[in-house]
Amino acid sequence: MKTYNTEILSVGTELLLGHVTNTDARDVSELLSRIGVNVLWHTVVGDNPGRMRDCVEIAKRRADIIITTGGLGPTCDDLTKKILAEAFGLPLVRNEAEYEGLYDFIKLGRVLTPNNYAQADLPEGCTVFHNDWGTAPGCAFEAQGKIVIMMPGPPNECVPMFRKYAVPYLKKLSDEQIVSHSLRIFGMGESTVDQIFRDEMNAMANPSMAPYAKECDCLLQVTAKAHSEEEAEAMIRPVMAHVRERLGEVVYGEDVETLEEAVMQLLKRRPVTFAAAESCTGGDIARRFTDLPGASAFFLGGVVSYTNGVKAGVLGVDPALIEEKGAVSFEVAKEMAERVRALTGADLGLGVTGLAGPDGDGVHEVGTVFVSMADREKTWVRELHLGAFRTRGFIRRMAGNHAFDMLRRYLTGLNILVP
Amino acid sequence: MKTYNTEILSVGTELLLGHVTNTDARDVSELLSRIGVNVLWHTVVGDNPGRMRDCVEIAKRRADIIITTGGLGPTCDDLTKKILAEAFGLPLVRNEAEYEGLYDFIKLGRVLTPNNYAQADLPEGCTVFHNDWGTAPGCAFEAQGKIVIMMPGPPNECVPMFRKYAVPYLKKLSDEQIVSHSLRIFGMGESTVDQIFRDEMNAMANPSMAPYAKECDCLLQVTAKAHSEEEAEAMIRPVMAHVRERLGEVVYGEDVETLEEAVMQLLKRRPVTFAAAESCTGGDIARRFTDLPGASAFFLGGVVSYTNGVKAGVLGVDPALIEEKGAVSFEVAKEMAERVRALTGADLGLGVTGLAGPDGDGVHEVGTVFVSMADREKTWVRELHLGAFRTRGFIRRMAGNHAFDMLRRYLTGLNILVP
Repeated sequence: MKTYNTEILSVGTELLLGHVTNTDARDVSELLSRIGVNVLWHTVVGDNPGRMRDCVEIAKRRADIIITTGGLGPTCDDLTKKILAEAFGLPLVRNEAEYEGLYDFIKLGRVLTPNNYAQADLPEGCTVFHNDWGTAPGCAFEAQGKIVIMMPGPPNECVPMFRKYAVPYLKKLSDEQIVSHSLRIFGMGESTVDQIFRDEMNAMANPSMAPYAKECDCLLQVTAKAHSEEEAEAMIRPVMAHVRERLGEVVYGEDVETLEEAVMQLLKRRPVTFAAAESCTGGDIARRFTDLPGASAFFLGGVVSYTNGVKAGVLGVDPALIEEKGAVSFEVAKEMAERVRALTGADLGLGVTGLAGPDGDGVHEVGTVFVSMADREKTWVRELHLGAFRTRGFIRRMAGNHAFDMLRRYLTGLNILVP
Repeated sequence: MKTYNTEILSVGTELLLGHVTNTDARDVSELLSRIGVNVLWHTVVGDNPGRMRDCVEIAKRRADIIITTGGLGPTCDDLTKKILAEAFGLPLVRNEAEYEGLYDFIKLGRVLTPNNYAQADLPEGCTVFHNDWGTAPGCAFEAQGKIVIMMPGPPNECVPMFRKYAVPYLKKLSDEQIVSHSLRIFGMGESTVDQIFRDEMNAMANPSMAPYAKECDCLLQVTAKAHSEEEAEAMIRPVMAHVRERLGEVVYGEDVETLEEAVMQLLKRRPVTFAAAESCTGGDIARRFTDLPGASAFFLGGVVSYTNGVKAGVLGVDPALIEEKGAVSFEVAKEMAERVRALTGADLGLGVTGLAGPDGDGVHEVGTVFVSMADREKTWVRELHLGAFRTRGFIRRMAGNHAFDMLRRYLTGLNILVP
């Protein structure tokens, strides 16, 4: 298969001012890596025609596929579309379906200016990507031996549109199909995973695999090329099974992004309810799970017991126990899980108490966290020392990961205490 | 003043695979915009010497300042440093202070490989930026009419180092000083702010100002150039006062990032305690406030009442009221704030109940949210219709912003119900 070297060119002065993060480049890259398209460059340029033109020239020289994000729509005067069409010698032509479609937005109560209608002017002969999430359509064309794809900038338009239209468009270009799956791993570092499979990975060509570190966990990506998706899938399966067999319990999911997503999938198969009592995570466990649509079927609620008063007064943890053992202790964590379970009537209770820093309590090192889980019969507590050099954000996220990992292990009948 | 056109060149294959977001480019850009340094390009390239060299050549042609992030340290074989030094004809020379300093890390229990010691080899004549947050030092040099700054990739090293060392280094290069402040605005859209100040902004040169939209609020940035920082500050002050006067209550803070940060500043001057009862925000209000160090002095805790059972059983909201008015109602929101205040003994209680979607409840449109606040005497409730076309994430964040805005208005004696 021809290797398509790809450049993602993001357009927007707000990116260069640091007001906005370029999540489009990240998310589009991730979608491309799954279908085996090589992203070699990201470029960001402002809403400036001259510099934009220069960047397009550089991309034309070095890349096979140019993907733009942003600079479409009325606020930026459709800069990207105009410059790309010009660079490839294509006129802009009014697309009637898109022109008519703009009226739908008026029904949603949005007011359209004459400028809005220019959005329906698209490079001659392009494939139009209708925008179901906003107004500015995207498009794709092939010219001068290059493939150009243009996407709107807002992430909640760019990413679903790219997944729905651009990914299938790119897949069709090749008679070889690339399929990629990832196994997510919690409780084993990327370097250990790398060490375990190093020799095998060096000996593999197709399928291939590679480990990647994420902030609080890691993943192993397995990729295969074949004439059909089915064939590529069939090549991947035995490798995935081998990895699962070798790594065992630390694999928490396939093609998921987070531990809470894996827990959600398990809960749909084996419904139990749970609640959380959170001290140092301060509501982050509840927030993470309720970020997932449908959370209310399993997550009843929780108590953020950020102070000892709330631990005692709302959760009902014995104040004498807090006094004796300290708020950051095995015993208080145990009671927190038990109490929140009893209080909410959930099947399971989770508890977290610890020091996220930057200040300590004079007793424990920052990064000391106790994470607990209780069912009707039993309570489990993990004692963590996440490292005093870690950030507050890392410690909170890692503590939450441990709570979801305990839940995952409970639901799949694994040893709950071993992370 | 000479305009320094700047390119940020980020090095790392993990960025091109979409495994990591390029927050360094965003944060460095934001710090540069505050001192008036023009960022015109962001580039991301992988750990590949050939492509890296090409990107450095492009940057040398078009930019005055080249700032690299990543590709320093042993895991990437100090790629960035080698290629930049080579591109500017500088040899790498061992820096004794950095070499000795590496031993400090051994004391923290980290193991150093021989590769680690190569980190102490730096371009001849450079200014060394010691890394207080990790091992790989950064540096800066001037050569061939260009300024080059190299920073390590991990955001928790790159950003504090850039702030501490690179910002003062860049400020010294100019006999003109640029100072910039932002006023954060909630309750008025960017387009309205733009409309109000359009004519003034067009007539202004120095100081200048510009509005920017953020996800759930907006800001107005005021920038002045002068021979000294004091002079620039003096030029900015009357403009800021004029904007505050004109916009009034919707300005929630100066040089802050979030409403919760503004609330934290107010609480330090006027300490009161608060608690939160959260339904559709699912713990996000608690999580946002407890992301700030020192939160426990003011935030006692809260209840995530994600189900009616928890609203009644833990918070103590009358089940008959929930039955009669519905969980998403003015009345239930009111009781939630009152109950969580009583339950925790806080001075103030916040409450949020609503529909974040994607599923509705058959009664309200998605995006309907009631946000409440109670003190000892009174309870206030805002009814919001945030729009059915909004994402779950937007609705949750916006609901939280309204809760913090009510708290802010309470603390500053403003009308609490007008957002």
